[in-house]
Amino acid sequence: MAVVVKLSGRIFEDEELVLKYAEAIKSYGVKIAVVTGGGELARRYISAAKRGGASNTFQDLIGIYASRLNALLLISLLGDAYPKVPTNIEEFLEAWRSHRVVVAGGFQPGQSTATVAALVAEAAGASVLLNAANIDAVYSDDPRKNPKAERLPHLKYDEFERIVRSSSLPGGYELMDVWSISILRRNCITVYIFDGRRPEHIGAILRGENPGTKITC
Amino acid sequence: MAVVVKLSGRIFEDEELVLKYAEAIKSYGVKIAVVTGGGELARRYISAAKRGGASNTFQDLIGIYASRLNALLLISLLGDAYPKVPTNIEEFLEAWRSHRVVVAGGFQPGQSTATVAALVAEAAGASVLLNAANIDAVYSDDPRKNPKAERLPHLKYDEFERIVRSSSLPGGYELMDVWSISILRRNCITVYIFDGRRPEHIGAILRGENPGTKITC
Amino acid sequence: MAVVVKLSGRIFEDEELVLKYAEAIKSYGVKIAVVTGGGELARRYISAAKRGGASNTFQDLIGIYASRLNALLLISLLGDAYPKVPTNIEEFLEAWRSHRVVVAGGFQPGQSTATVAALVAEAAGASVLLNAANIDAVYSDDPRKNPKAERLPHLKYDEFERIVRSSSLPGGYELMDVWSISILRRNCITVYIFDGRRPEHIGAILRGENPGTKITC
Amino acid sequence: MAVVVKLSGRIFEDEELVLKYAEAIKSYGVKIAVVTGGGELARRYISAAKRGGASNTFQDLIGIYASRLNALLLISLLGDAYPKVPTNIEEFLEAWRSHRVVVAGGFQPGQSTATVAALVAEAAGASVLLNAANIDAVYSDDPRKNPKAERLPHLKYDEFERIVRSSSLPGGYELMDVWSISILRRNCITVYIFDGRRPEHIGAILRGENPGTKITC
Amino acid sequence: MAVVVKLSGRIFEDEELVLKYAEAIKSYGVKIAVVTGGGELARRYISAAKRGGASNTFQDLIGIYASRLNALLLISLLGDAYPKVPTNIEEFLEAWRSHRVVVAGGFQPGQSTATVAALVAEAAGASVLLNAANIDAVYSDDPRKNPKAERLPHLKYDEFERIVRSSSLPGGYELMDVWSISILRRNCITVYIFDGRRPEHIGAILRGENPGTKITC
Amino acid sequence: MAVVVKLSGRIFEDEELVLKYAEAIKSYGVKIAVVTGGGELARRYISAAKRGGASNTFQDLIGIYASRLNALLLISLLGDAYPKVPTNIEEFLEAWRSHRVVVAGGFQPGQSTATVAALVAEAAGASVLLNAANIDAVYSDDPRKNPKAERLPHLKYDEFERIVRSSSLPGGYELMDVWSISILRRNCITVYIFDGRRPEHIGAILRGENPGTKITC
Repeated sequence: MAVVVKLSGRIFEDEELVLKYAEAIKSYGVKIAVVTGGGELARRYISAAKRGGASNTFQDLIGIYASRLNALLLISLLGDAYPKVPTNIEEFLEAWRSHRVVVAGGFQPGQSTATVAALVAEAAGASVLLNAANIDAVYSDDPRKNPKAERLPHLKYDEFERIVRSSSLPGGYELMDVWSISILRRNCITVYIFDGRRPEHIGAILRGENPGTKITC
Repeated sequence: MAVVVKLSGRIFEDEELVLKYAEAIKSYGVKIAVVTGGGELARRYISAAKRGGASNTFQDLIGIYASRLNALLLISLLGDAYPKVPTNIEEFLEAWRSHRVVVAGGFQPGQSTATVAALVAEAAGASVLLNAANIDAVYSDDPRKNPKAERLPHLKYDEFERIVRSSSLPGGYELMDVWSISILRRNCITVYIFDGRRPEHIGAILRGENPGTKITC
Repeated sequence: MAVVVKLSGRIFEDEELVLKYAEAIKSYGVKIAVVTGGGELARRYISAAKRGGASNTFQDLIGIYASRLNALLLISLLGDAYPKVPTNIEEFLEAWRSHRVVVAGGFQPGQSTATVAALVAEAAGASVLLNAANIDAVYSDDPRKNPKAERLPHLKYDEFERIVRSSSLPGGYELMDVWSISILRRNCITVYIFDGRRPEHIGAILRGENPGTKITC
Repeated sequence: MAVVVKLSGRIFEDEELVLKYAEAIKSYGVKIAVVTGGGELARRYISAAKRGGASNTFQDLIGIYASRLNALLLISLLGDAYPKVPTNIEEFLEAWRSHRVVVAGGFQPGQSTATVAALVAEAAGASVLLNAANIDAVYSDDPRKNPKAERLPHLKYDEFERIVRSSSLPGGYELMDVWSISILRRNCITVYIFDGRRPEHIGAILRGENPGTKITC
Repeated sequence: MAVVVKLSGRIFEDEELVLKYAEAIKSYGVKIAVVTGGGELARRYISAAKRGGASNTFQDLIGIYASRLNALLLISLLGDAYPKVPTNIEEFLEAWRSHRVVVAGGFQPGQSTATVAALVAEAAGASVLLNAANIDAVYSDDPRKNPKAERLPHLKYDEFERIVRSSSLPGGYELMDVWSISILRRNCITVYIFDGRRPEHIGAILRGENPGTKITC
Repeated sequence: MAVVVKLSGRIFEDEELVLKYAEAIKSYGVKIAVVTGGGELARRYISAAKRGGASNTFQDLIGIYASRLNALLLISLLGDAYPKVPTNIEEFLEAWRSHRVVVAGGFQPGQSTATVAALVAEAAGASVLLNAANIDAVYSDDPRKNPKAERLPHLKYDEFERIVRSSSLPGGYELMDVWSISILRRNCITVYIFDGRRPEHIGAILRGENPGTKITC
């Protein structure tokens, strides 16, 4: 069983959390491809670049470099990961053939790391994508504003896409975007969205549980 | 003045047309970045791959290889183009610094060549993108079905996006997609859509004319 | 047992045939290195390039790109092939160490894909090269012109080279050239030439049969 | 005149400072090679890696990635810098031939960025290295502990090396190490050490002033 | 005027000679592409490899590495050469666009450096190839054996090819082979063969003289 | 058990010796990383470069190319070595994951091959480094000058470093330098220094003997 884990860049703000994710990944014997976001590091550097007049292209490249630094940190904590951070899908494919774990950051400007995670899932032939997100599940509305917002443990892709397009979901773009959704949907990949502060959910999901939201086609 | 020219892959079905585009590009002294689609060649190979069970990832890679073959053909017809086909935005940036003309195909799965053209325009700091398309202009409706369809020589991005989202525009995805539109819009790049069978329109546009549709922010 | 299969580019004109070759390669458990020619695709693009004044260097590079597109198509149809198209012999060697199947196109201008196949056979330590050719066997004369032309099921390298040098053999250069012959001969690699429209001959040859011509040192 | 500027990684903690250095580099028309350290970013990530049991090799690679992120940020703020971060001296040489400004981070484990700056100075044929340091000059003793410490505006390499070897100099290793000193000395490169919080000192030094310490052979 | 200079590897046995060639290349302001052979260094290493059972592939690769070491030495003696040794024709093309001098060694197994020189001449659009050879001119027969051997200052390609094919020419294969001859002939490149121990002949040839043998189409 | 073997470049002056080392490496089933020096070949080429005014950077690069030619020769004599010469630590790490034997030369200017051997030992997680040196053991003084010099079969790192820093040890820099010593010490890697003309000592050391000097932390 091959799974893809998308780690929100925010996880890398918390050293403890990164170490726990490394432990989790080491402990489960499945083939795992991890995609890391750039997080606060990326935002900080992009903000400085923007202030100084950098082009969007360079802002994107900076975000990618930040995500790769996060990826390399995770690699350094694992024993058997491919020792480099692949920079495009062909490098990923090559590494995936002979390593149990491969960790990537961004690939190219114009693609969010959520999209990269979806492309990696497609390339890896993974049937499952675990999204360690900034929210603990998908809700019908922003639970921080609307106490009546309904927690949605199961969604079909159509429903999920509708919610993502609306602006009521916190995390918005960083959770998923319509592009990544379309790639995942066309391969009928099941997505689990769970609270990124809870690495133990990876084990729970691999055992068949659903600690957050499960999206199917 | 730096311009980007997006050449629909269909142009490469017609040897005469390719030769004329080469002549046009050689004759105008401006800095030009060209992005070539995969065309019928890509479609044919992708169809064979699909039949044989190839993954979407490989189908995309095949389309990219086809677009790069088209790009190389064009390079071979120009005297002063960067002699290689850049495979990502950093290679493009590097080549663009020291060559008047750079010709690219696709970069990575998950990005249409329309998106690549938009990213290249952004990276090149181009103010204008010329789209040698499969239609001669943008219409309010499909002119082949509705004789009353109105030819639209000038559009704002909002209007253009609305039309693209609707299914009434022939060419649809291959013309532009919402992703490329958003990249172009955020850099306020002017887009000219014209009949790809008329290479002479490049000169017309450079002279300030508008033979098809002009889209501005 | 490691074998090399040289696929004439013409095979890629026929979708059915490509799919059958993929099946054949998947079914035999031996280590296989495949080298694909550029075929009609290459000829068409080279012709356009030549018309437009492209240098011989670029014409050769175009032929190489075409052969690599064919190679990638084949890779996409196999499950366990090295996922990239090696571009030189060192990349081939690296891939060959850890993959059952590796598919290459051309390497460098100045080398026919027949020569590349010979170099790959040498590098792979293969004892056998299967040439899926445009003719079904080697004849003493062009059988299409001379009905008395003798079919030659067994040849020594000397005899084969004499026939290749003479102009009576259809296919001529695309079959083999003196350079590839000398590389094969110095490693004493056995060559089987068979009808490229008959993928089932691969299995026959692996079972010890000789459906066309067998060349030994 | 070609100069090398070594920017302590700490500069990248201060967005204002980075923007000012970008302005300074843009304003002086000389050929400039910049080498950026990893700073606090590197230390933070290396510390996390170390906690999790990462090898020294990976700790070094993480430091290098951090320094390259800093380098890329600086590149994004300049208009005419080589658009990539060279990863070794040959890439640097290639970029240096055709760009006024090149910005590098670390190259390989086992080399401090101070050493990289020295190697780059040697490769670039620079006669001057400007070290934007964590101290404002070299002192005979640690001025923070010994109020009688003497500020040393001029030093010969011998004297400087003696001071670096002793532990009384704050900044120690990050300022310079004996390896970088030997490389600089053998090429008789003049080093200016100045307060890294004062980008305007670059201009002063280029005008012939000495705001901190000047080291000559 | 662009010229290609082929330097026999034997030149690199003589330090004085290498230094003189560097001076010659520096002094003439024309665009020069140099291709260096592996010489005695290659022969010694290949012999050791062969003794130890190395494959032909590796023997060829060793010869290529040796030729590249020679190339790098020459680069180090020139001020404005492309700072790297291109490893294939595309790298050569890229370097040739922006450097007055480019120095290459071998490219791939299966190609003599004479062939590489011919391919480089074709790619560079050079009209002239200067072959600093192991003989001082072409003779009708081996002058060391037949005192009546006629020195041939002018030859057409047909005549030259006939002589090369016969075994009477000393140097034989290392001078030129039929493959390089065919590439040179199809581009109508003029070849000058002269005594490799006389670097001053380069200047003579550039001035219109013919110190050895001149071959034209 | 993973070991690193550092082969002095002088070994490559003696064809017999190289063949014996190849045999030794093939016969022991352990994972071995080999680092080869440039030897006399490097010295000869560097001397020529220096005479002609080459920069230190190019002198170092020439030394690296020479060491890589030696590495390739050794690779060609082994059956299962990674088929390429890694050029930096990341390439080494990648190769080391899937090959029993990897052979490298130098990586970057500014690092002796002794330092590269130490970095490779650190990256490979090796506990032992075997240094096939130009001396048969470490002595308290130069045994060629002082007949009373004491042979030292066992040393701690402190003692060894003291001896290396003093000028009394023949071989000096080429044996080890303080930089490599510090890398080895921080990983507590045991070093065996033995007579490089005696390949059979590798087997002896693997069997637990100490034919020369053993250095521990």
